[in-house]
Amino acid sequence: MRSDLPTFADIRDAAQRIAPYAVQTPLLEHNALNTRTGGRILIKPEVLQRTGSFKFRGALNRLLLIPEGERRHGVVAFSSGNHAQGVAAAAGILGVPSVIVMPSDAPRAKVNGTRELGAEVVFYDRFTDDREKIALGICSERAATLVRPFDDPWVVAGQGTIGLELAQSAAARGIVLDAVLAPAGGGGMVSGVALALSAESPTTEIFSVEPENFDGMRRSLTEGRPTRAPGGAVSVADSLMALVPGDIPFSVARERLASGLVVSDSALLRAVSYAAKQLKLIVEPGGAAGLAALLSGAFDARGKTVAVVLSGGNCDFETVARACAEIVDP
Amino acid sequence: MRSDLPTFADIRDAAQRIAPYAVQTPLLEHNALNTRTGGRILIKPEVLQRTGSFKFRGALNRLLLIPEGERRHGVVAFSSGNHAQGVAAAAGILGVPSVIVMPSDAPRAKVNGTRELGAEVVFYDRFTDDREKIALGICSERAATLVRPFDDPWVVAGQGTIGLELAQSAAARGIVLDAVLAPAGGGGMVSGVALALSAESPTTEIFSVEPENFDGMRRSLTEGRPTRAPGGAVSVADSLMALVPGDIPFSVARERLASGLVVSDSALLRAVSYAAKQLKLIVEPGGAAGLAALLSGAFDARGKTVAVVLSGGNCDFETVARACAEIVDP
Repeated sequence: MRSDLPTFADIRDAAQRIAPYAVQTPLLEHNALNTRTGGRILIKPEVLQRTGSFKFRGALNRLLLIPEGERRHGVVAFSSGNHAQGVAAAAGILGVPSVIVMPSDAPRAKVNGTRELGAEVVFYDRFTDDREKIALGICSERAATLVRPFDDPWVVAGQGTIGLELAQSAAARGIVLDAVLAPAGGGGMVSGVALALSAESPTTEIFSVEPENFDGMRRSLTEGRPTRAPGGAVSVADSLMALVPGDIPFSVARERLASGLVVSDSALLRAVSYAAKQLKLIVEPGGAAGLAALLSGAFDARGKTVAVVLSGGNCDFETVARACAEIVDP
Repeated sequence: MRSDLPTFADIRDAAQRIAPYAVQTPLLEHNALNTRTGGRILIKPEVLQRTGSFKFRGALNRLLLIPEGERRHGVVAFSSGNHAQGVAAAAGILGVPSVIVMPSDAPRAKVNGTRELGAEVVFYDRFTDDREKIALGICSERAATLVRPFDDPWVVAGQGTIGLELAQSAAARGIVLDAVLAPAGGGGMVSGVALALSAESPTTEIFSVEPENFDGMRRSLTEGRPTRAPGGAVSVADSLMALVPGDIPFSVARERLASGLVVSDSALLRAVSYAAKQLKLIVEPGGAAGLAALLSGAFDARGKTVAVVLSGGNCDFETVARACAEIVDP
């Protein structure tokens, strides 16, 4: 067992630390979704979180834990988008400079969003460059701190505050959660959620949801060790394209996740369309993975009480419009 | 003074009555909106309410107050929009039949949506028929109860639960509201909100927001008596096209509203685009009137703490897509 893994106490501390800045997102229920799935579905809309995704939680927690003398040299992150905005926003709040290393084909909404938050954006080529090397180069030039998107105990603890809120909101309403579905890219969020619920609601089963061909968490859980997904084809879920979970997220998740679920691109777009038309929420394809698992039947919710994390809403609006036009009756 | 006006106690009773079925919508805050307006803006997203609009609150409260012996004969409403769905959903919950009188050229989606909630739809000809007469005819045939969209004390009390929740959520977070902005069609909601806040937060100023040419509430407040707006051109806000406030809503509102604000169609569409892109919420043009007042400067929020009711999200998705395409940077 690694010695640098986050604990439940780290999540409780993170919740206190980020409370002055982060949104405690509500727990929503939609009757039509209950009827459709045959279960009781509770939605945790992290699209309403500051910066439009849960990533702000982990980034802010991490930045607050950098000693002040180091923090003023700034922070660097590599990210396709939501982590970038989380780090940029957290840096802005703390008044420190931030540099974000982004793929040159990142969605416009995410690039613009990151710049508007005050970050400097450095592009790399997804197919030829090593983004981590670029980011580490900038760090050593400026004595800045690298903020990893998921393979970091304090980032995992920050994302885990979602699980803590889920457990507390459910308990306050007398609800016992049978399951929680959460999207997984590098696994930072789903592992943090699992860590929180294993302490606060140990009977709740946690499931990661990933796009086809990018199901590193599912494969790793099955194999019992970090296992690479094939990748290859581009997924509509740009935020979930990590091929293998981070070491720290996987170490936390392996004993705490029930199993990993997989959804197709068309199921993701159907969930995006459903969220916009029925739930009145803008959700990016990756953020809708849990909902896609419910609507597609990848997870059978009949007779169960299930919380779903809608993790982010930062796609270009055209993506939502296209999904809604193609899938008229989601 | 009329003797059939709702009181604050009616709102408190309504809140208890509808609690098992209605969503207590959260109070959301978005940093970008604070920065843009120079104030502290709190959003009450009734788009997340059951049926996608606040109308469910008033309809359910009204139906629950029909004595059971009468209720089983069913309810009748005339509406092609949010009130229709509110009444149909409330009737479905209570297991009573509902008839909705709709124009024969109503969009299929709205007809189907109302039918899916279990209502019987009766069509009328928009140009030759009197919808109220048709509805009253059905009521007398079946001994059913007519549920008016706003000119009813219990409907106003039901909508007023929004104001009660606003006051309670704000107080729980130590927030003092300087102002509340709410869309007005017939005025049932804004008057109920004003009634609740006049009791719970008497220093808060309440403003109705209406589309140009459909500013019956603003004119009535200025004149001190129900005064018709010119109407004429069709507004993008199909839910706010009443020309004159209801007698009961106006009687409640006249002493309790600070004044009435007016926004243009383009300001409404800008607010729809802003809500989708920045707030990640699908809001119909009429539902976005309060936000439009903030973004257009019709209400100057600088230095103020202002709550805005986003009252509904039941437009065709294409309306949102068009607004987002036309107004790229809202």
